[in-house]
Parts: sequence; C-alpha cells; structure tokens
Amino acid sequence: MTAQPFRGILVPVLTPFTASGEPDMGRFTTFCRWLLDQGAGGLAIFGTTSEANSMSPAERMALLDRLIEAGIPAEKLMPGTGACAMTDAVELVRHAVGHGCGGVLMLPPFYYKPVSDDGIFAFVAGVIDKVGSAALRVYLYHIPPVAVVGYSLDLVGRFIKAYPQTVVGLKDSSGDWNNTAALLDRYPGFAVFPGSEVFLLDALRKGGAGCITATGNINVPGIARLYAEWEGPRADALQAEITTVRKTMQAYPMVPALKRVVAHFHNDPGWAAVRPPLLPLNEAQSAALIADLAKIGFTLGERRQKAA
Amino acid sequence: MTAQPFRGILVPVLTPFTASGEPDMGRFTTFCRWLLDQGAGGLAIFGTTSEANSMSPAERMALLDRLIEAGIPAEKLMPGTGACAMTDAVELVRHAVGHGCGGVLMLPPFYYKPVSDDGIFAFVAGVIDKVGSAALRVYLYHIPPVAVVGYSLDLVGRFIKAYPQTVVGLKDSSGDWNNTAALLDRYPGFAVFPGSEVFLLDALRKGGAGCITATGNINVPGIARLYAEWEGPRADALQAEITTVRKTMQAYPMVPALKRVVAHFHNDPGWAAVRPPLLPLNEAQSAALIADLAKIGFTLGERRQKAA
Repeated sequence: MTAQPFRGILVPVLTPFTASGEPDMGRFTTFCRWLLDQGAGGLAIFGTTSEANSMSPAERMALLDRLIEAGIPAEKLMPGTGACAMTDAVELVRHAVGHGCGGVLMLPPFYYKPVSDDGIFAFVAGVIDKVGSAALRVYLYHIPPVAVVGYSLDLVGRFIKAYPQTVVGLKDSSGDWNNTAALLDRYPGFAVFPGSEVFLLDALRKGGAGCITATGNINVPGIARLYAEWEGPRADALQAEITTVRKTMQAYPMVPALKRVVAHFHNDPGWAAVRPPLLPLNEAQSAALIADLAKIGFTLGERRQKAA
Repeated sequence: MTAQPFRGILVPVLTPFTASGEPDMGRFTTFCRWLLDQGAGGLAIFGTTSEANSMSPAERMALLDRLIEAGIPAEKLMPGTGACAMTDAVELVRHAVGHGCGGVLMLPPFYYKPVSDDGIFAFVAGVIDKVGSAALRVYLYHIPPVAVVGYSLDLVGRFIKAYPQTVVGLKDSSGDWNNTAALLDRYPGFAVFPGSEVFLLDALRKGGAGCITATGNINVPGIARLYAEWEGPRADALQAEITTVRKTMQAYPMVPALKRVVAHFHNDPGWAAVRPPLLPLNEAQSAALIADLAKIGFTLGERRQKAA
C-alpha cells in the first residue's frame, strides 16, 4: 500500500451561492482558507455536504481552478468526483489530477438500482484506467443513505487488490459503526474515515485515519482537539463534547442548517442560500437551531480561541 | 390544459455504443427510424432504458443533434433531461426546445434523499422558469424504483396548477397500478403514460394516453396493435399476448436483455454493448433468453409482418 496523503479532520466544504444562484467563488476561497487555518487536515470539496451533485461538472471544475489560483495547496484537496456517467467522472478526475490534488473522493454511479458489485467495479476501474495516472489516489465514497448504491466490504477488497497504489482509502458515511469496524479489521493500512465525528474516537482506537465530517464546517477546532489528544486522559470527554454538537445539528436538515450556522457566526446572511432540491431553513427553524447551539455553549469564535 | 403532442406507444430508445464505448450515432439513427416505421407514436430518447444517465449532457446533446440532422421529425421526440444539477437540466431542456422537440421527459433531481415536495417543486419550476419558453412541454418522469425520488400525487397537481400550458403529462414507472389509476382519476386531460404495456389496456379504459415502455424497443407492432384495437373484441387477447412478452423479458436485467434481443434479431452482435454500471448478459443468460422468446413464438420479423 502506498503512503497516505491525508490524515486527521477533513471537511466536506459547504459551497456558497450568490444571490442569483451561482457558485460564489470569493466566499468559497475565503472559507476554504479559514478551514485550513482552523486546523483542517484536508478539504473534501464537492461532497454531499457541498451540494456537488447540484452543480454541473463545469461549475465544479471552475471552483477548483479558482482555489488553486488563490493559492490553496492542491495536496490538501480531495475533490469529490461523483457522477453517474463515466465520461463525466473521467473528466472530473483528470482535472483534479492535473491540478495535483492529494486525492479524489469517488461515489459509485448512483442512478441505476439495483446494480451489481461487478458493475460498480467496471465503472470505477474504467475511470481509473482511462485516467491512467500514477499520481491518482482514490478514496471510495460510501454513503448508502443518500446514494443508495454503495461499496460492499468485499468490493472494497477487490479494489485494494486490483489497485493497491491507487485505491487507498474510503469515507464511510453509512452511519453504521459495524461497517466501519469491519473495514478497519479487514483492511489494515487502508485509510478509513468515518463520515461522522461521532465515531472518531472508536475509529482512531482501531487504526482509523481521522474523519471526514460535515460538521467540520463549523467545528474543526473541537474535532481536531480530540484527534490530537485521542490517546490522552481527556479523550472520552472531548468525544462527548463534539458528539453533543453533532447531535444538535442532526436535529435539522444538515446542509441548510450548517449554512445557517455559518451565516450566523460569520455575520453573512447570504451564506444561507442553497440550491434546489435543498431548501433553506425557515425563520422558526433558524431561530430554534441558533438557540439550541447557545444552550450547549457552542460558538464558532469561542471554539476557535480554545483551540488556539 | 394545452393540446397533447404525444399519444400511443412511445419508445425509450436503447442507446447503442461502439466497440470503444462511445455512443454509436449511426446505429442510433437507423434504429430510431426503424422504430418510427414500426408504428411508434414517439421516441422518448434518453430515458432509463437509454442509459441516458450513463452519458454526459454533451453526449446526449450530440446524439439529438445527429437525429435532427438525419431528418427524424423533432415533434416525435421526447428527450429525457434527467440531471441532479439544475444547470445541467436547464442546458438539456433548452437544447431540446431549440430543436423543436415535442416535449421533454423530466426526472426529479435524484441524488439527495430524502427531499421534500417543496424542494422538487423548486427544482423543476426553476428549470421551467429559466428556460422560459412557451414551446416547452414537460412530461414528469416518475420512476421511484430506480430514481428513488419521485413525484407524489399532490405534487403533480401543484405542477398542473402552476404550469397548465407546460406540464402536460407524466410517465408512471412506479409499477404500481393504483398510482396510475389515481393520476387518471384526479387529473383528467393530463397525459398519463404507464411505464409498462402490462397496464396499457387498463390505462386506456380510464383515459390514459398510451404507454412509454422499454419493451417497445422490440415489440412496437404488438403493443401498437392493442392501442389501435383497444375498444374491439380482441383487446383482452392482445393484452395477454404483449404481457407474455413483457414478463419473459422481465426475468432478465431489462436493458442488457433488450440489447441482446436487438443484437440477435438485427443480426448485429455489437448492439449488445452496455456502459458500466450495467453489464451485458453472459452467454448462458443470452441463450436462455433467446430460447424463452422462441418458446412464446416471439420474433421481431414475424411481429413486424403481422402488424403490416
């Protein structure tokens, strides 16, 4: 197995939109830099939390171009390349590799259901073969609650065997700890990132690489502190603290809720915009969410200071 | 409600691929012409059966350009415009309207789950408003077994009320006759096409517009005969006959099986190619399928002669 380009807390970065609904290049770049400054180990731009599948491939590539121009280090970037068509996936992966991105996060093709492991293998292997780059590092993106189609344990093993230098990790957003634990048990050296910090300590104790979590958009310092101190005496207390933040957020639709929190704490109302089919929180939900976060003592600023 | 541009048997046309995996423009054009010659009332190119979501928007638009250049009448075409991103959907719809297509078949955005009716409404309404053409005719594409996200009965009513001149019909591939019947009962004048000829006679007896069916790729004459004679004495017998063909096909993965049948009867083995994540039938499956069709007396040639 190859050296691992990513460890720690990776953030599936929210994508801001302008008032007219276009991806907001300026806000996006500023936000990515802020996340890295807060201690993010990498930026998994263009994931589910990023509303990536609500953007065309051209829109995603333009955002990546802009980040690179703005000086965000390519090796910190793990762009999602989710697409139902191999032609689109090849174009997105080639573009990311061309920029020197540390890796890509690859959804299985998610339109057809049911689809066999052989069919998913043919798709992903086809993309890897067509891109044909030794620099490519693929992280499989397993999120059956949304994509429905997922990577079975056996299929992951087939990829590791067929592409040991290329398929080097997986984000497990199944929400099923048993699946994450089984991956860690069966494939040592393979970089497994749970898709929620709720499982971070358990994963680290079994050799996990960190986590890639939506809530990283608002809580990198808290989550990174546990990552830094997971072998220390405060580990369980730190886990409890970040779990409380996560559970508070999970009571609301996650993407609009995260954008509302960013809008609130960054004092930038325009940040709350989402693209259909997602909808922004209404006023009542927004007020309840901010109140819930206040109740648990969460503020973006305080956290940042505590971590500093 | 506006005049209906489509009635009868519409075919979600299979997309042939070349040996190197590209959409095969020549075979596609020939096949579309053959389907119209057989009596298809329209061609719902770029649906699920067409592997449309396994093609990039650019590939789909190039195929449509080619059909128009080849003289296939635009008013007979109902291209699917399935996309998760509004930007892609707008581009595909605008392109179809620009060619004067009779209508478009529109999937809901199918990545995010769960998603609210309000969110789906915002997406589809956003596409219609951005395209902003009085010539646009939208047929909603309801196929929850594959897309998972679907159009609820109430949501269909919202579209009819908001866009009476534009949202004029629906393909119901739910496989649930009760849903089709409820649509026909609640929205008279709205063009409801069951997604399988198994429900054709029942639908016609309740005011249905015809059907849009995968099996049309191999059995337009048989299905069109029932459509022509549904009020006559042979109706139930003709329904039984086409149901037998459908059930025989349904024992196999539908898209690869249809392509195998086309390859066999058109004596053109290259037709069997599919794009990942779909896989072609293996040799044993192919032989069993052809034998099953022989058992029920089905051949493409005979059907065509009978219908003539």
